[in-house]
Amino acid sequence: MAGSILGTIFKITTWGESHGKALGAVVDGCPAGLSLTEEDIQIYLDRRKPGQSAIATPRKESDQVEILSGIFEGKTTGTPISLMIRNTSQKSSDYSEIASYYRPGHADYTYDAKYGFRDYTGGGRSSGRETAGRVAAGAIALKILHELGISVMAYTRSIGPVSIAPARFDQSAIYETATCMPDRKADEQAAAYLKECMMKKDSSGGVIECVVKGLPAGIGDPVFEKLDANLAKAVMSVGAVKAVEIGDGAMVSRASGSENNDAFYYPEHDVIGIDESGIAKKTNHAGGILGGISDGADLILRAHIKPTPSIFMEQDTVNKNGENIKIAIKGRHDPVIVPRAVVVVEAMTALTLLDACMLNMTARIDYLKQFYSLR
Amino acid sequence: MAGSILGTIFKITTWGESHGKALGAVVDGCPAGLSLTEEDIQIYLDRRKPGQSAIATPRKESDQVEILSGIFEGKTTGTPISLMIRNTSQKSSDYSEIASYYRPGHADYTYDAKYGFRDYTGGGRSSGRETAGRVAAGAIALKILHELGISVMAYTRSIGPVSIAPARFDQSAIYETATCMPDRKADEQAAAYLKECMMKKDSSGGVIECVVKGLPAGIGDPVFEKLDANLAKAVMSVGAVKAVEIGDGAMVSRASGSENNDAFYYPEHDVIGIDESGIAKKTNHAGGILGGISDGADLILRAHIKPTPSIFMEQDTVNKNGENIKIAIKGRHDPVIVPRAVVVVEAMTALTLLDACMLNMTARIDYLKQFYSLR
Amino acid sequence: MAGSILGTIFKITTWGESHGKALGAVVDGCPAGLSLTEEDIQIYLDRRKPGQSAIATPRKESDQVEILSGIFEGKTTGTPISLMIRNTSQKSSDYSEIASYYRPGHADYTYDAKYGFRDYTGGGRSSGRETAGRVAAGAIALKILHELGISVMAYTRSIGPVSIAPARFDQSAIYETATCMPDRKADEQAAAYLKECMMKKDSSGGVIECVVKGLPAGIGDPVFEKLDANLAKAVMSVGAVKAVEIGDGAMVSRASGSENNDAFYYPEHDVIGIDESGIAKKTNHAGGILGGISDGADLILRAHIKPTPSIFMEQDTVNKNGENIKIAIKGRHDPVIVPRAVVVVEAMTALTLLDACMLNMTARIDYLKQFYSLR
Amino acid sequence: MAGSILGTIFKITTWGESHGKALGAVVDGCPAGLSLTEEDIQIYLDRRKPGQSAIATPRKESDQVEILSGIFEGKTTGTPISLMIRNTSQKSSDYSEIASYYRPGHADYTYDAKYGFRDYTGGGRSSGRETAGRVAAGAIALKILHELGISVMAYTRSIGPVSIAPARFDQSAIYETATCMPDRKADEQAAAYLKECMMKKDSSGGVIECVVKGLPAGIGDPVFEKLDANLAKAVMSVGAVKAVEIGDGAMVSRASGSENNDAFYYPEHDVIGIDESGIAKKTNHAGGILGGISDGADLILRAHIKPTPSIFMEQDTVNKNGENIKIAIKGRHDPVIVPRAVVVVEAMTALTLLDACMLNMTARIDYLKQFYSLR
Repeated sequence: MAGSILGTIFKITTWGESHGKALGAVVDGCPAGLSLTEEDIQIYLDRRKPGQSAIATPRKESDQVEILSGIFEGKTTGTPISLMIRNTSQKSSDYSEIASYYRPGHADYTYDAKYGFRDYTGGGRSSGRETAGRVAAGAIALKILHELGISVMAYTRSIGPVSIAPARFDQSAIYETATCMPDRKADEQAAAYLKECMMKKDSSGGVIECVVKGLPAGIGDPVFEKLDANLAKAVMSVGAVKAVEIGDGAMVSRASGSENNDAFYYPEHDVIGIDESGIAKKTNHAGGILGGISDGADLILRAHIKPTPSIFMEQDTVNKNGENIKIAIKGRHDPVIVPRAVVVVEAMTALTLLDACMLNMTARIDYLKQFYSLR
Repeated sequence: MAGSILGTIFKITTWGESHGKALGAVVDGCPAGLSLTEEDIQIYLDRRKPGQSAIATPRKESDQVEILSGIFEGKTTGTPISLMIRNTSQKSSDYSEIASYYRPGHADYTYDAKYGFRDYTGGGRSSGRETAGRVAAGAIALKILHELGISVMAYTRSIGPVSIAPARFDQSAIYETATCMPDRKADEQAAAYLKECMMKKDSSGGVIECVVKGLPAGIGDPVFEKLDANLAKAVMSVGAVKAVEIGDGAMVSRASGSENNDAFYYPEHDVIGIDESGIAKKTNHAGGILGGISDGADLILRAHIKPTPSIFMEQDTVNKNGENIKIAIKGRHDPVIVPRAVVVVEAMTALTLLDACMLNMTARIDYLKQFYSLR
Repeated sequence: MAGSILGTIFKITTWGESHGKALGAVVDGCPAGLSLTEEDIQIYLDRRKPGQSAIATPRKESDQVEILSGIFEGKTTGTPISLMIRNTSQKSSDYSEIASYYRPGHADYTYDAKYGFRDYTGGGRSSGRETAGRVAAGAIALKILHELGISVMAYTRSIGPVSIAPARFDQSAIYETATCMPDRKADEQAAAYLKECMMKKDSSGGVIECVVKGLPAGIGDPVFEKLDANLAKAVMSVGAVKAVEIGDGAMVSRASGSENNDAFYYPEHDVIGIDESGIAKKTNHAGGILGGISDGADLILRAHIKPTPSIFMEQDTVNKNGENIKIAIKGRHDPVIVPRAVVVVEAMTALTLLDACMLNMTARIDYLKQFYSLR
Repeated sequence: MAGSILGTIFKITTWGESHGKALGAVVDGCPAGLSLTEEDIQIYLDRRKPGQSAIATPRKESDQVEILSGIFEGKTTGTPISLMIRNTSQKSSDYSEIASYYRPGHADYTYDAKYGFRDYTGGGRSSGRETAGRVAAGAIALKILHELGISVMAYTRSIGPVSIAPARFDQSAIYETATCMPDRKADEQAAAYLKECMMKKDSSGGVIECVVKGLPAGIGDPVFEKLDANLAKAVMSVGAVKAVEIGDGAMVSRASGSENNDAFYYPEHDVIGIDESGIAKKTNHAGGILGGISDGADLILRAHIKPTPSIFMEQDTVNKNGENIKIAIKGRHDPVIVPRAVVVVEAMTALTLLDACMLNMTARIDYLKQFYSLR
């Protein structure tokens, strides 16, 4: 069925394969009146783009976005915004060999099992390149959230054994380092670790963290549409993510209630993150969500990313002739997926939050009465 | 907005509060012709029910399900199946005090922030009692999956520091121990640990694991509707879950590609879990999902459950008069949420899998042609 | 698949068969803070109920609604509202014979074709009795629309050859006559016509009209979610409706553009129906919708209802043994469906409008900014 | 909210404005393995294209479709199919004047009321040009239905007072005449009538009929997702449609039950349209749908299309300065919308039917069991 559509009010449809003519996204349900240019979107795509660093694939894609519809005189009209990115760098000839076998850790076999055949050039739709559409659409969500005073910041928290140190947190480093770590020293260590991986023809996993500030209390819905549930879906839908944590995440299973509960209090003076109710929390083990609804504190989530499955080391696998074979993957592959997925996690978080914020506008009869009497 | 509806084809709507007249679920989209009795559902509700053990709340709810529609002559008709469970044990008088303050770790404050007020009796809709509707609906999904040869088994993997030992795995213990651990020795240790928690007026977290056997390769959809994405949403939507892992989960972030990739192979003789393609995997770090689509191996997921937030120890919080206060929660509360959530995780997994299996029936044009020419 | 769920934000799920234990509806996404009692709903169910008149079935159902969830201290909480109506009058023994054959004009054959068998007692889910759930849910939508200053009024416009005369329009007659005609003279004529039908062992069709006043301009969405498109779906989904018209409806196909266009103008003095923009229309051929979006004028739609298919006259049909047979339907059947469907059309219109009104609250970035800065 | 997405399994998203860079559609959920070329789609777009005849606008758009994704080696892969049509003929300078006033019968005012401003060039998203995306997507649905043995044929039934005569029905004339009437004599009469309209600076309405053959019994779902309900929505969503009829449509309101019921029978010899059950109907007043589910007979629907609102005659309207003004519309406008909408109705019918056919594949537990045991 249709897997490429996300959202209830702010809906996005993405399309495109690694080696097709183009990739893109259609955003339907974007509110009218938002100033929007291609540059607003391009800055996020540039963050996703393969870089020039030693740890990134040498593939060069300019990834220039073109807005095809939905904007009039510089503003969104409320109708679908179609975004297209032409593929310019693909060379299908690189991929002829992998048509016949199944790469470990890739979706080759599962696509064949589902559809009977697959587009084997560059992974087709299962390629990480698919995320360009998510980022393009997410850029619009991020811009709207910004106008509402809500910021979303994702970064690399760890690569293999190397983690950032809170004391060295430096937001600018996210955008300036090859690892997207907000810690220049950890970036250096991680780069060294990745070189080691590459020398071993191996790859590394890592963790992306995302922090949302300014989200008011009350966002999210009970039961199945909990804010954390939708965030978990959005983030887990990014290829290579194998675990999603909210707040203290997996650590809660070893915690006691007295450790894990966040005490509410009224601070004597205003603190950052305080809600208009005046209520704050002394800790934030919950990561900003209680009962599936935001509590006004920072929203915190983490995604655990598996190591790049394309490794140059020899591996065992099978081909379609029923033979057990050995393969050595060639071509251009990053030794770690994490840095390029940082902006994708940011985009997915933003898309989920914006949709929840829009839905929340109808949560009370008083909101409806006020809206329709004001007009 | 509507948060209590789940699914695309096999759709469930749940309703009801902890202390209302009743709770229930409506299943719409259940295939016609399935034999179904109240007993089929009751066995799962009984697993969710508060027990008599030392570690469980003394609240006694018979939780008898009544089927109100959708069955004719013992079989599902294809029309909505309405399931109702009358509340019989609630005493609203217990809850008068908590109306005025916000319990740490609960949704009291966030519901007020969202809706302007809340049903404070027993937590209302945010109570764990809400999951009765999920389990009732999930029982039907589990029965259908069983008829398709797919089994879903959840169990307690750990409580606080006590984990099960794979070598002692004993499925019958899941249904016979108070902890729902498939390891009778770990159950004893966990029970001892929980008694300790209770003496300290504290509570414990834990981990639930769920294993699915018999799921064919090819289930799940690309991009946003990946099988793991929908499982993450379904499981994270269960109250108290703070992290969801697939396969090796959070461990992948420290693994290398050569460790994490599962090698495909053709076994010399049939092995359990082998697909009709004849392809098997030597390991299952992926937990049975590659690129969001099942690969024919066992599907494995884990949910990390926070400690019961209702602890008897004194806690800091606020009341609605703008005062910082100290509270000590009274009443009946389990020292651990995990055992009663086991069957809920099983239900949520089954609901997600069945919907994905039904959607998969339209994945190829040949399936459509075969279906419509056979008829 | 699931056919019994309607709406995007204000979502309803209905369930139940003619001769099952009960029927009901679950409303999910109702804004919190609305005062709601069973009586608010009962008044609409009473309008749907079989009457005592000569033209209505003697079946007596008290159709008492019970609210099972979603209300706390007299107000909606924002969580699902479960509504149940126990069936009290069904006698399954009446229906044993029709199990074996297919009644013309009924869904007996198509349900068998789809599901392999059917609940043949009283038509099961395909019975008009299914609409009780729609009306119960619709009553809540009607109450909310009323609070927003939007009124919805449906009535019988014609029965067979008898039409109401605009000059005799009397709203009170809708609720007081057996035909639900807002014209007491037409009601008498229609009653006479129906007696004639009954003497001939035959039945009659008719037309229901629905007028909405107070709907602001701007409601509805472009392309597939046009307001008229959703109204057409909602009304056509009522059993026995075979045509839906908006405004001049079918007459437009013979009109010229100069006849059909509604001229805009600024009236010298305020007129009823004028928008806050100050713009009015001289005519309303469009029925209040232009380009799928409300234009501030009265919204007008009509549903054409087929004659009751259960007639006492002998009819040709087939049984399941492969035989051509003759049947004469027995039991209790109204000679016309129209009067009991009036409140159903009103409910379906209200449900559609409310959902569109809620969705409209996110149409502009300024609405979002105002909402989130005001809070 | 998002109005440009349609479907449950076979989902389409359309985008684009009359005078933007391009228009398009993304089809998500198309089964894998379908042979598909741009030519398969182009033939339908060519039917929608403005012609050279005296009754059609002289605007020349080549409307060349480009497939951007979702096809590999000539076959659909199961992933989104992105279709793009570049706009080549737009001249925005034509439209500067209409920015300041509201054209009667158009969506100018309602878009302003909803969004605060509008893309006034050529009607923006509310232009009939939007339907190019529907037709492109519909072409794929039509191809799949054809492979399942289901044909969909729409044609002009009447223009103003001129109707086709059943005795002269000639399918080839649909594709060869300027009116798309399956009756060459009626085409001539209609052409003469339209010339008359043009001389009067006026326009004409008309009726489109659509007939589906080969649809098996059992398609469609109960209650809200009835096949006729979804068809009514799909067809009413086409701009200018003001009424939708199924089978005898509006005539049923004056019919008696004995006239309107279709008698079932087992024919002595096979007849066209007979179901695999062997059951046929002597008449087809129901238009092939009973209880919202197809009955195996021809499915018949009609759409009533309003006259082109852009007429050259002087009209009263208002401008945004609060003035009552008189306008005379210039530019290129067909005197009748009907012929160009024929293929749009065909497309919308096909999209609706295909989605319903796909959903029907999960209607019985036996279908699931057979599918999963066969694999």
